[in-house]
Amino acid sequence: MNIIKYMLKNGKQKIMRLKILHKILKDSGQFPYVVFNLKNIRYLTGFTGSNAYLIIDENANYFITDSRYEIFARTLLNDDYRFIIQKKGFKDVFEQFIKENKIQKIFLEPSELKIDVFNTLKNAVPETELIPASDYISEMRAVKTSDEIKIIQEAVNIADSCIDHILKIFNPEMTEWQLSAEIDSFYRKNNCRRTSFDSIVASGPGSAMPHYVPSFEKKIGTDTLLMIDMGCEYLDYCSDITRTFFIGNVPEKFMEIYNIVLEAQNYAIEMVKPGVKCCDIDAAARTHIEKRGYGNFFGHSLGHGVGLDVHENPYVKSDNSELLKSGSIITIEPGIYIEGEGGIRIEDMICVTDEGYMNMTGSSKEIIIL
Amino acid sequence: MNIIKYMLKNGKQKIMRLKILHKILKDSGQFPYVVFNLKNIRYLTGFTGSNAYLIIDENANYFITDSRYEIFARTLLNDDYRFIIQKKGFKDVFEQFIKENKIQKIFLEPSELKIDVFNTLKNAVPETELIPASDYISEMRAVKTSDEIKIIQEAVNIADSCIDHILKIFNPEMTEWQLSAEIDSFYRKNNCRRTSFDSIVASGPGSAMPHYVPSFEKKIGTDTLLMIDMGCEYLDYCSDITRTFFIGNVPEKFMEIYNIVLEAQNYAIEMVKPGVKCCDIDAAARTHIEKRGYGNFFGHSLGHGVGLDVHENPYVKSDNSELLKSGSIITIEPGIYIEGEGGIRIEDMICVTDEGYMNMTGSSKEIIIL
Repeated sequence: MNIIKYMLKNGKQKIMRLKILHKILKDSGQFPYVVFNLKNIRYLTGFTGSNAYLIIDENANYFITDSRYEIFARTLLNDDYRFIIQKKGFKDVFEQFIKENKIQKIFLEPSELKIDVFNTLKNAVPETELIPASDYISEMRAVKTSDEIKIIQEAVNIADSCIDHILKIFNPEMTEWQLSAEIDSFYRKNNCRRTSFDSIVASGPGSAMPHYVPSFEKKIGTDTLLMIDMGCEYLDYCSDITRTFFIGNVPEKFMEIYNIVLEAQNYAIEMVKPGVKCCDIDAAARTHIEKRGYGNFFGHSLGHGVGLDVHENPYVKSDNSELLKSGSIITIEPGIYIEGEGGIRIEDMICVTDEGYMNMTGSSKEIIIL
Repeated sequence: MNIIKYMLKNGKQKIMRLKILHKILKDSGQFPYVVFNLKNIRYLTGFTGSNAYLIIDENANYFITDSRYEIFARTLLNDDYRFIIQKKGFKDVFEQFIKENKIQKIFLEPSELKIDVFNTLKNAVPETELIPASDYISEMRAVKTSDEIKIIQEAVNIADSCIDHILKIFNPEMTEWQLSAEIDSFYRKNNCRRTSFDSIVASGPGSAMPHYVPSFEKKIGTDTLLMIDMGCEYLDYCSDITRTFFIGNVPEKFMEIYNIVLEAQNYAIEMVKPGVKCCDIDAAARTHIEKRGYGNFFGHSLGHGVGLDVHENPYVKSDNSELLKSGSIITIEPGIYIEGEGGIRIEDMICVTDEGYMNMTGSSKEIIIL
């Protein structure tokens, strides 16, 4: 994997991505364009810090950060970028750029631009037109290259191994938090910098809360459901999978519910191919759950894209009529939640391929009774 | 600590904070007011999820989230809030609120409001005036109550214990990443949900990068500096401390640099009391470092507030003339960084008291040679 890491940090991908962005901006007449989203900056440059901006102009690109990141950023950037260390805030650099280059209008990436930052910039250059534009880089990120798919597959493999690890070390005397900490520790031992989100370890009625927070005090116990939703960041890319286990004797109806959720998931996965509407995938799972009488117990959307962010384009939900593209990676994660009793969710990561789909997730979906 | 947790979750603090906000909004004539910042929502309600909004009106408060958080949120909220589950996005709820209540103008908290969200809301209710207002809750958060100070003190104590733990288990054969993972594991075993930021473990020339990322491959080694900057989140509140250690034989000049940084820190800390300008605290440390000839090697600002966020108001930097208030908690963290060789930073957390200050940090600042 070091070769891929090297390529990402030093190689062709960064140059290619910048070229594509330049072509988009040229075709749409949107130079200069300012990038505020740090994940988008990471995508273009490999920079992983907490403060940076890009100004992409037709004949020059500017990378702006502060002194804390100066040495690190210099190791990443090639001649494509002019390097600027901001002395105070970004506003001063922005103002100077506008004035020196006599810019009449400038296009701003909207997804992470806060209204107070926008107003500060606007007040600094009142004569210049500031135009919120499309988030082109997030759109680019929705289609992964083969190198990115390889890295994300590795992130999923590590999550699969973590499920195996949990099944080995599990005992009902552990608190939810202890199991959650085990997940985190497993990831760190496997060279993941962090979990891709706070791991969900939910037993009993907690499993009926789709985004439950593991308890420090509550033991997992027996005769209960155990829902585990987690993932890691590997080489900056995320994974996200969910499995629900049965511990001891669980009311019979949850066996039925498990199978309904699994069938719903399969219906949705089978539909995945380029050109299908995201909302139709959502509907495939939702309709099945409704038909089986649990429509009111599945409130969230079916899935989301995964990449540098654990939630990114495309969103698999009822009000998104966007068409799936080959190279996107999405989750399919239906669930049924009975308040006060428990819930079942099953989540896989699916890669959209030219032919249809590839399920990236290896963990068993048989009912496992611990 | 369970009593404090209980109070925070159920008790007086939430009611008091909401009352103060109501008074501010009434005095400034800024009803209704929409809250977008999740940490501010946590401050008012205890909600820890990833999607929520508040609409604060003179005679009613609305808490809006999605179905994933429904059960969890209901357990937190008292009668002060009307509870709304958004079916699609926040936009629909916002539009309905504006139309049902015939709102002519509405005030929006600016700090986390993205320009594209602002434009979406604006387009939904073109007849209504949308006014970015002040971030009143962040201002409230800059002054901690005695209960908050107790919790943050505990978060600092855990970080101090973590320094002790590191000194016990350290050996030069460990990679930077292994030591970083040890820090994380220590925090999780001590009931911290997460680190308050990615721990910095930097040896050799890496310590000259103020925000270095620990290497998976690089062993810490001997005859080197070791900079550790880390903190935890305990009951949602953050800590943040830095210590720099000497391993084996380090060039003599770093002993001198260590003492300059420590002196600079002491000059700054001694100035801390209510009514002093933040920029003057920064200047106290910076002037000393300049006088000793290292002005060009200390690029970042001196410190920042710490609370629910690890970086929050007040910012201790050269362009902030805000006056310190009793009850604020800030870091004081000067550093000197020599590119290619190494760097020294020493960071304490300081509570501003009525009389002056209390240093919350217990870890030794003697030069420690490992």
